[in-house]
Amino acid sequence: MTIEAGKQETQGSRIRLGMVGGGQGAFIGGVHRIAARIDDQFELVAGALSSDPERAKASAAEIGIAPDRAYGSFEEMARTEAARPDGIEAVAIVTPNNVHAPAAKVFLNAGIHVICDKPMTTTAAEAEELVELVKKTGKVFVLTHNYTGYPMIRQARAMVEAGELGDIRLVKAEYPQDWLTERAELSGSKQAEWRTDPKRSGAGGSIGDIGTHAYNLAAFVTGLETQELLAQLTTFVPGRLLDDDVQILLRYKGGARGMLWASQVAVGNENGLKLRVYGTKGGLEWTQADPNYLWFTRFGEPKQLLTRAGAGAWPHAQRVSRVPGGHPEGYLEGFATIYAEAARAIRAANMGTKPDAEVIYPTVEDGLAGMRFIEAAVASSRAGNVWTRVG
Amino acid sequence: MTIEAGKQETQGSRIRLGMVGGGQGAFIGGVHRIAARIDDQFELVAGALSSDPERAKASAAEIGIAPDRAYGSFEEMARTEAARPDGIEAVAIVTPNNVHAPAAKVFLNAGIHVICDKPMTTTAAEAEELVELVKKTGKVFVLTHNYTGYPMIRQARAMVEAGELGDIRLVKAEYPQDWLTERAELSGSKQAEWRTDPKRSGAGGSIGDIGTHAYNLAAFVTGLETQELLAQLTTFVPGRLLDDDVQILLRYKGGARGMLWASQVAVGNENGLKLRVYGTKGGLEWTQADPNYLWFTRFGEPKQLLTRAGAGAWPHAQRVSRVPGGHPEGYLEGFATIYAEAARAIRAANMGTKPDAEVIYPTVEDGLAGMRFIEAAVASSRAGNVWTRVG
Amino acid sequence: MTIEAGKQETQGSRIRLGMVGGGQGAFIGGVHRIAARIDDQFELVAGALSSDPERAKASAAEIGIAPDRAYGSFEEMARTEAARPDGIEAVAIVTPNNVHAPAAKVFLNAGIHVICDKPMTTTAAEAEELVELVKKTGKVFVLTHNYTGYPMIRQARAMVEAGELGDIRLVKAEYPQDWLTERAELSGSKQAEWRTDPKRSGAGGSIGDIGTHAYNLAAFVTGLETQELLAQLTTFVPGRLLDDDVQILLRYKGGARGMLWASQVAVGNENGLKLRVYGTKGGLEWTQADPNYLWFTRFGEPKQLLTRAGAGAWPHAQRVSRVPGGHPEGYLEGFATIYAEAARAIRAANMGTKPDAEVIYPTVEDGLAGMRFIEAAVASSRAGNVWTRVG
Amino acid sequence: MTIEAGKQETQGSRIRLGMVGGGQGAFIGGVHRIAARIDDQFELVAGALSSDPERAKASAAEIGIAPDRAYGSFEEMARTEAARPDGIEAVAIVTPNNVHAPAAKVFLNAGIHVICDKPMTTTAAEAEELVELVKKTGKVFVLTHNYTGYPMIRQARAMVEAGELGDIRLVKAEYPQDWLTERAELSGSKQAEWRTDPKRSGAGGSIGDIGTHAYNLAAFVTGLETQELLAQLTTFVPGRLLDDDVQILLRYKGGARGMLWASQVAVGNENGLKLRVYGTKGGLEWTQADPNYLWFTRFGEPKQLLTRAGAGAWPHAQRVSRVPGGHPEGYLEGFATIYAEAARAIRAANMGTKPDAEVIYPTVEDGLAGMRFIEAAVASSRAGNVWTRVG
Repeated sequence: MTIEAGKQETQGSRIRLGMVGGGQGAFIGGVHRIAARIDDQFELVAGALSSDPERAKASAAEIGIAPDRAYGSFEEMARTEAARPDGIEAVAIVTPNNVHAPAAKVFLNAGIHVICDKPMTTTAAEAEELVELVKKTGKVFVLTHNYTGYPMIRQARAMVEAGELGDIRLVKAEYPQDWLTERAELSGSKQAEWRTDPKRSGAGGSIGDIGTHAYNLAAFVTGLETQELLAQLTTFVPGRLLDDDVQILLRYKGGARGMLWASQVAVGNENGLKLRVYGTKGGLEWTQADPNYLWFTRFGEPKQLLTRAGAGAWPHAQRVSRVPGGHPEGYLEGFATIYAEAARAIRAANMGTKPDAEVIYPTVEDGLAGMRFIEAAVASSRAGNVWTRVG
Repeated sequence: MTIEAGKQETQGSRIRLGMVGGGQGAFIGGVHRIAARIDDQFELVAGALSSDPERAKASAAEIGIAPDRAYGSFEEMARTEAARPDGIEAVAIVTPNNVHAPAAKVFLNAGIHVICDKPMTTTAAEAEELVELVKKTGKVFVLTHNYTGYPMIRQARAMVEAGELGDIRLVKAEYPQDWLTERAELSGSKQAEWRTDPKRSGAGGSIGDIGTHAYNLAAFVTGLETQELLAQLTTFVPGRLLDDDVQILLRYKGGARGMLWASQVAVGNENGLKLRVYGTKGGLEWTQADPNYLWFTRFGEPKQLLTRAGAGAWPHAQRVSRVPGGHPEGYLEGFATIYAEAARAIRAANMGTKPDAEVIYPTVEDGLAGMRFIEAAVASSRAGNVWTRVG
Repeated sequence: MTIEAGKQETQGSRIRLGMVGGGQGAFIGGVHRIAARIDDQFELVAGALSSDPERAKASAAEIGIAPDRAYGSFEEMARTEAARPDGIEAVAIVTPNNVHAPAAKVFLNAGIHVICDKPMTTTAAEAEELVELVKKTGKVFVLTHNYTGYPMIRQARAMVEAGELGDIRLVKAEYPQDWLTERAELSGSKQAEWRTDPKRSGAGGSIGDIGTHAYNLAAFVTGLETQELLAQLTTFVPGRLLDDDVQILLRYKGGARGMLWASQVAVGNENGLKLRVYGTKGGLEWTQADPNYLWFTRFGEPKQLLTRAGAGAWPHAQRVSRVPGGHPEGYLEGFATIYAEAARAIRAANMGTKPDAEVIYPTVEDGLAGMRFIEAAVASSRAGNVWTRVG
Repeated sequence: MTIEAGKQETQGSRIRLGMVGGGQGAFIGGVHRIAARIDDQFELVAGALSSDPERAKASAAEIGIAPDRAYGSFEEMARTEAARPDGIEAVAIVTPNNVHAPAAKVFLNAGIHVICDKPMTTTAAEAEELVELVKKTGKVFVLTHNYTGYPMIRQARAMVEAGELGDIRLVKAEYPQDWLTERAELSGSKQAEWRTDPKRSGAGGSIGDIGTHAYNLAAFVTGLETQELLAQLTTFVPGRLLDDDVQILLRYKGGARGMLWASQVAVGNENGLKLRVYGTKGGLEWTQADPNYLWFTRFGEPKQLLTRAGAGAWPHAQRVSRVPGGHPEGYLEGFATIYAEAARAIRAANMGTKPDAEVIYPTVEDGLAGMRFIEAAVASSRAGNVWTRVG
C-alpha cells in the first residue's frame, strides 16, 4: 500500500484476437484467454480451437465466439479473417509444438500479428524461417515465455543490467516437476500424451517443455549469451520416448558458467522453477512458486527480501504490477503482462512506430535461441555429453 | 499439473455491470474491474466513478465506458440504467465506506443486484436496514470480503466443517500492516486520507479497514459465532483520529476462544493477514501473502503442506482454481472468485432459482456481523476493555 | 565464515557444581549438564538428583558423580558440601517448581551460588524472600530463562537499546505447543504430571511453564516494564487442574502495548516461541525454532534477514556465538551461554568484583517479575479478565 | 516434548583424548573440543596444538592442558603418550589437510585411535595407505564428515534404506558459500590462506573443502556408489591457485544420476549445503542451515515436514537427539554425534568387540572415496570435462 502499483494502461478499443488450439481438454488455451482479459487489451472474436472441426465449434460456442468465426482449420481462419474488415488483428497459437510454425507462417503471411506458445517450433531450421518471415512481414511476434512477465523477474533483470551484481560469474537455473514420475501418458492425460510424443513435441521432452523456460529465464535476467553447453538427457521412466530429465553445464560468453536442471520425475516438486545468479558484487535468488519475493545480497551486507511493490521494488517491477505490495500476484498476472506488452507492441506497429523502450517481451529471436538450445543439448547428449556450440 | 484445476464456467452472455466509485486515483476500483474480467462473467458498461462529475466522466472515458453511461451521481445512474432495456443488471460499489449504504439502497430499490466493498456500512443500524432491504427486494447482495475467495481458505472451511480438526478450541487471526506507521494521511495519500477520517470511514479505523477482514475470515473458516469480545483500540500515531491498532479477545459460542490483532503500524508487515485454527484433533495455518499453501497437522502426525491443486487439495479448492498446482494464484484470482460466485448467484436469481449449494459468497448478513463486531469493539474499548456482547 | 565467531573464554580451573533434581526420567537436568559442559567452565561433582534416595544414588552413578557425593536430600548436600574444602561452589536447581525456593534458600545460606530453573518459585511472596536473601548473602543467582542466551536475542536487545526501532509501540509474544492437547498427564508422562499439578507447579499451568518464558523474553529484548495486564486463562482439556492456554493483553510503562499468548493445546506447534517488536522506526521478528535468523525492517526499507555471525551480526551476537555463520547453533548453545555468563559472574563474585558490563543473565529480580506476572494473570483471570497491576 | 529424545549413553570413565592442531587462531579445533565435551565421553589431556612450539604451549595452557602434555610436535606426542600408562587412547587430528596422513600414521602405529578431519589426505595414494594401516593396526579411524551426525540425515538414510523412496533416480547435492568471493587469502584470514594453498590443501580447493562434504553426504544418505563423473572446476577469483567453484555430473551404479555443485563465490550463501534425493516412490529434501527439518513427499501425497523428535521422527533420528522436538539442535550437536559414535566404537575396540550395528560413522574407506572423488574430478576437469571413472 505504501507504493502505488503500476497502472496498466487503458485501452482505446480492444485488439481483435483469434486463437488456434485451446479447445476443450486443453490447459494453456484457457490461461491465454484469462491473460488476455486481465488488462483488457484484447477481445477474443475468432478461433480454430481444435483440429477436430466438431470439437472446434463446440469449444467456440462454449467461450462465446460467434459461430461464423469458429473455424475448422487455422488456414481457413487466416484466410477468412484477413478478408474481413473487422478481422482479427492478432492470433494466439496455443497448440502442441508441431503446429506452432505452420500456423505462425500462415498468419504472418496474412498480415496478422502472432502470439505463440513455446517452444517456438520443433526444429531450429523452422525457427530460422520464422525469424526471416517476421523480419519480412514486419509483424509483431511474441513468444509466451510467460515467466519473464513476473515483476520480480523484471526487477532482477534491471538489477543485473544496472550492475548491482557486478560481473556475473554463476547462473543456476532449475525447473523440477514430478507429474511424469509415472507413465501418465498411458493414463489418459492429454497433457502428458503430446508432451511425450516426438511427433508433436519435437526432439525434446522435458527440455522443450520446461528446460527452455529455465534457459530463457536465465538469459532474460542475465543478458548473457551462451557459447557452448554439455548436456545429459535421461529417460527414467521405461517406455517413454523422450527425455524426462535434463542436466546441463553452460558456458556463457565472457566467462560466466551455469548449470541447468529440468526434471519431470523429481517427486515433491510441482513447478519448482528457480533462478540464482551470482556476480562479483552480489547475488539474486528467485522462485516461481513464491514469485512476489526476490532475495538480494550485496557481498558483505545482510540479505534483503525485496517484495513486489514493497520498499525495495524498482520501477521495472512496479510498471508491471497491478496491486499494492503484500497482496500476491501470480502466474496469470505474469502471463497477462506478456499480453499487455504484446498489446503495446501491436498498437505501436499498427501506427507504424516502435513501442517504448521499456516494453519487453520474448521475441522470435528468443524462440530461435530456445530451439538452438534444444538441438545443441540433444546433440551433446547423443554424442556422449560433450561440449557443443549453441547456434 | 497432476490434478486438473477447476474449470470456471463459461458464460452465455455477460452480466451487465455498473460501478460506483473507482475513478482516477482510487485503488480498489481497478481491482474490482480486473476481478470482474478474469472469469469473463461481467461486462462493465456504466459508471458513476467519482463524486466529482468532471472526474467521473474522464475516468469513464479512460476505461472505455460510453459517454452516455458515465454518470455524475449514483442516483442518476440507478434511475437511468433501471429505465434502459439494456441497463445494468448489477452494480459494484467501491467508494469510501460512508457511501456504501446510500448507494446500495438506491440500486436495490431500483431492482439492481449489488456487489459492495467492505465494511458494509458505517453503523450497524444502517447494516440492519440493508439486511431488511435485501430480504424485501430479493436481490443478490455480495460483500467483497475477498479473502474468502482464496482456494485454500475454501479448503480450510471444508476441512473444519468435515470435522478434520475436531472441536475448535482456538482461533488466532491477525492482520498487521505498516503503511500508517507515520502520518501518511498528511502526505497526500488518498487511501490514507479517507481511511483515517471518521466521516468517511465510520467509528473504526484499522478495525474497519482490516480488522473486519480478519474477523470475517475467522468466521468463514470456522463457522463459529461470536458471543462476546473484549477490545482495546489504540491510536499510536499522534493526531490521528481513528484507531491504528486493535487487540481483541473473543469468546465464541460453544466455548472456543480467540485472539484478533490488526495493526497499521507494525513495521515490516505489508499485508500480514494470517489465520490459525486449533481443534481437539488438528490444526490449520494460512497466510495471505503465501496463499497457495495450507499447513495442516493432525495431532500426533507430521505436519503437511497442502497446496492448491496439489495432492492434498480438496474439491472445494479445485473448484475455485484456474491453473494447475505449482503455478501460484494470487489476490486478483481470489477476488475474481467472489465475482464468479456473484455471477452464479445473479444468474440463478435472474431465473428465479437458488444457486447450487456449493456457491459461497459473503452476504449482507456477514456485512451486518462485521458492523456489529466494529461497534462492539469500539464500545468495549471505550468502556475500559470489558466484555461486550456482539450483536 | 566471513566473521570470526566470538571466542568463549577459557577456564582457569573449572567451577565445582552440584545439582538438585535431574535424575533418571527427568528432562531438563540433562540439558543443564550439557549446557554446563559446552563452554567447559563447570565440573559436576555432587548431586541430590532425586527425592527418592535410591534413585538419587543410581542416577549419580550413571553420570559419574562419586558415590560419597551422591546425596539423598538437598539439605544434606548443602551442609556436607559447604563443609568440604573442595565443596561445590555453585548448585543447579532443576526440580519441579515447588522445590526451587526451599533449595535455593538452603544453598544461598550455605554460601553457595545458585543457578535455578524457572519459574523461580510458586508464589511471588517466596520470590520476594529470595530477592532479599540474594541481596543479603551477596551470592550469584542465575535464573535459566535460557532463551535469553540465543545470539540473535542478544542482538535484538542491543538493537532496541541502540534505538534502531525508535520508540517501542507493540510487543507480540507467543509460545504455542501442542503436547498437552490430550491428557498426557494420565498416560505416564512424568513431564506432564508435575506441570499440571498445582502442588508442584503452583497456581499457573501453561502460564508458568511457557508463558513466563514469553513474558521474560519480551522484557529482556525491549527493556520495557509492565504496568498492568488483562488475562484470560483457560483449561481446555477436561479434568485438567491448571490452565493450558493463556491470552493476555499487556500495558507497558511509557505507552507500549502487548499481546501474549501461550498454549499447550495448539496442534501443530512444537515449541513455537516467537517474539515480534514494533517501534516508530523499525520492527523485529524472531522465532525460536529458527534461532539463527532475525528479521529486521527499517520503516520504508526492504526487510533484512540478519544471521548469527553473518554480515549484519552485531558484537552482542558474536560474543555468545561459537561457530561461524551458516552453521546453526541451537537450544543447547543458547542454554550454555547462560552457564557461561553464570561462570563469569561467579568468578567475579569469588574475586569480590563485578562481572564486565557485557555479562548478562536473568536475575533473581527477573524471577520475581515472573512470579508477579503469573499472580497478576491468575488474579485478572479470576476477577473476570480485568486490568490488574503487576507487582 | 511428545516424544522422549534419545538418551546419550553415560560414560564409565572418559576416553583420554589428544589433539593435533587446533591452536590459537584455528577454527575447527575448538569445534572438535566442544563436540567431544557435549556427550561427556572424552577428556582432552594432551595436545600438539601448533607446529610452532611456543604457540603450541600457549594454546595448551589456554585450554587447560597440563604443561607436560603440551607437545611441540605430533611425533613427540605420539611417542610420549604411547609410553605413559595414562596416555591418550585417541587423538583428534584437526590440522590443514597435508598433515592429516603423516599424523594419522604415527598415531595408528603407536596404537592410538584416530579421529581425523576431512578431506582425509591430499592424495588418493596416501588414503590407500591409511586404509591398509587401519586394517593392519585394528585401530578405530573416524573421519569427521560431521554432517552425517545430524539426526534428520540419519533419518533420511534410514528412509532410503527402508525403500520409502523406491529406486533412487536423482541426487542433487550442493554446497554454496560466499566467503571467498574476494581474495580473502590476502587479507590475513588464516582459514582462507591454507585452503587456497595447494601445498597445504592438495589438488582441490573448494572441491576438497566443501565438495567432499556434499559428495559424502549424498553417498551417506543414498548408499549409492559412484561409477563415473564429469567435472568442471573453475577459479573465478584472479590470482587464486585452486578452484573456487565446482560443477559435477555424477553417474551412480544402478543408473541413478546426480549433480553436485560447490562454490565459495556464490554471494548470499553462508553454508548452503543442501541434499535432494528423488526415487520412483518418493522424494527428500534437507538443508543444513535448517537441520531439524526433513521434507518428505510420497508420490501422489501431500508434502510432509518431518521434524527431529517430532511425530514423524524415526528411531534413527531420536537415537542421536538430545532435546525434545521444537528445540533446535545444530552444528555442534551433529558434530558431537560423530564423537559419541567414535566413543562407542573405541570402547568396543578396547574390549575387543564390534560396536552395535546402529553405530555409524564415516570411516577410513569413506575418506579414500573422498580422495578418489577429488582426483577424478580434477582429472576430468583437466581433460576437458570428460567422463572419468572414480576409484
